[in-house]
Amino acid sequence: MTITLYELTGRDTARPFSPHCWKTVMSLAHKGLDFVRSPVPFTGVPEVENRLGKTVPVLRDGDTVISDSFEIALYLEKAYPDLPTLLGGEGGIALSRFIESWSLTQIHTAIGGRLLLDIHAMLEPKDQAYFRQSRETRFGKPLEDVVEASAGRAGEFAARLEPLRIMLKQQPFIGGEGPLFADYIVFGAFQWARVCSAEQLLESGDPVADWFERCLDLHHGAGRAIAAAA
Amino acid sequence: MTITLYELTGRDTARPFSPHCWKTVMSLAHKGLDFVRSPVPFTGVPEVENRLGKTVPVLRDGDTVISDSFEIALYLEKAYPDLPTLLGGEGGIALSRFIESWSLTQIHTAIGGRLLLDIHAMLEPKDQAYFRQSRETRFGKPLEDVVEASAGRAGEFAARLEPLRIMLKQQPFIGGEGPLFADYIVFGAFQWARVCSAEQLLESGDPVADWFERCLDLHHGAGRAIAAAA
Repeated sequence: MTITLYELTGRDTARPFSPHCWKTVMSLAHKGLDFVRSPVPFTGVPEVENRLGKTVPVLRDGDTVISDSFEIALYLEKAYPDLPTLLGGEGGIALSRFIESWSLTQIHTAIGGRLLLDIHAMLEPKDQAYFRQSRETRFGKPLEDVVEASAGRAGEFAARLEPLRIMLKQQPFIGGEGPLFADYIVFGAFQWARVCSAEQLLESGDPVADWFERCLDLHHGAGRAIAAAA
Repeated sequence: MTITLYELTGRDTARPFSPHCWKTVMSLAHKGLDFVRSPVPFTGVPEVENRLGKTVPVLRDGDTVISDSFEIALYLEKAYPDLPTLLGGEGGIALSRFIESWSLTQIHTAIGGRLLLDIHAMLEPKDQAYFRQSRETRFGKPLEDVVEASAGRAGEFAARLEPLRIMLKQQPFIGGEGPLFADYIVFGAFQWARVCSAEQLLESGDPVADWFERCLDLHHGAGRAIAAAA
């Protein structure tokens, strides 16, 4: 049975960049499952699998189709209980919801603004028009102004990572001795930045940077297989 | 076999206030275990159980003596596996470390400064002298200056709680449908403020305030049994 992952790309369909899609790539790699990657441009998202979801990732596994990276993780855990655990039990599932909220409110909000023009530059013209219009509506100003407002706030961003940095003194992954979906939730955000922008997000020597490098090495370098933006 | 919890108090030994001790009170209540509460003043901490720990809580269960609220939670889970789970499995244990780091760096740092004079006022003179000296060394300035610098930052504090607030749209507790030790980690900080200070930390209607009220109701109102500061 073939597993297909629909994931967001730009002009270069070999450079998936969506943070949420990366969570699912890592989830599948964690379970050791083979899958086919099906690239989708922004304007193609509504057409995926007969308009099932409004967002990607979307996963098809045989007759089952699921959207949303967290729902996909729950599905994979249930469908493949004998493969390495992705969520670490009931407590791991519940607490991963907190990690998701933390990542969205603390990391995505900080990274997202910075990357707008980088992402725009990666898209086909039709997707560029969609992207600019939808994001300018969301932010209430031109992309250029959002990016400018985000510049020079590296110190503030580094401070937001303090909970992760302090935790990493006790264990190498959010999942403990090894990674869990909680790691991939946060990894997705940093990988988004790594694929879209050459700007350095973290100082070298930062324990968070070391953790990200460890994540890039996981599962035969599934994350590192896509080169960083240059 | 009697379980004894050594916990910090001031002059009124019936008003335990330490956030870390409250984590353990709630852990024991969660397991449904009876225990004796042994009050300890700041200057008595080094003498507890033959100088075992440098901090409270310290728990004695028969011949076993353990310090540190997280270590105590791990012990209780292992010693009483048939009672309701406190950590929710391996994933729950690992991810609780993140919750602990988040609470320490985002909540304790915001609350701790505000409460210094309230706590000082609750102590016996000998403990007041110790408390003032140790905290003024830690903060590098008089208690009064730390409290003044903390005032008027309620908005900033409320913003720090956003990850918890967003998560609470999906589930009533950090532990999911019911509470886990992760909830008690954060509860301890809010209970510390509730017992020491009459200042309102959260706007009513804030989902975080609603969550805290739910926590106060848990285990026959174990948290609510100590009245709020007036």
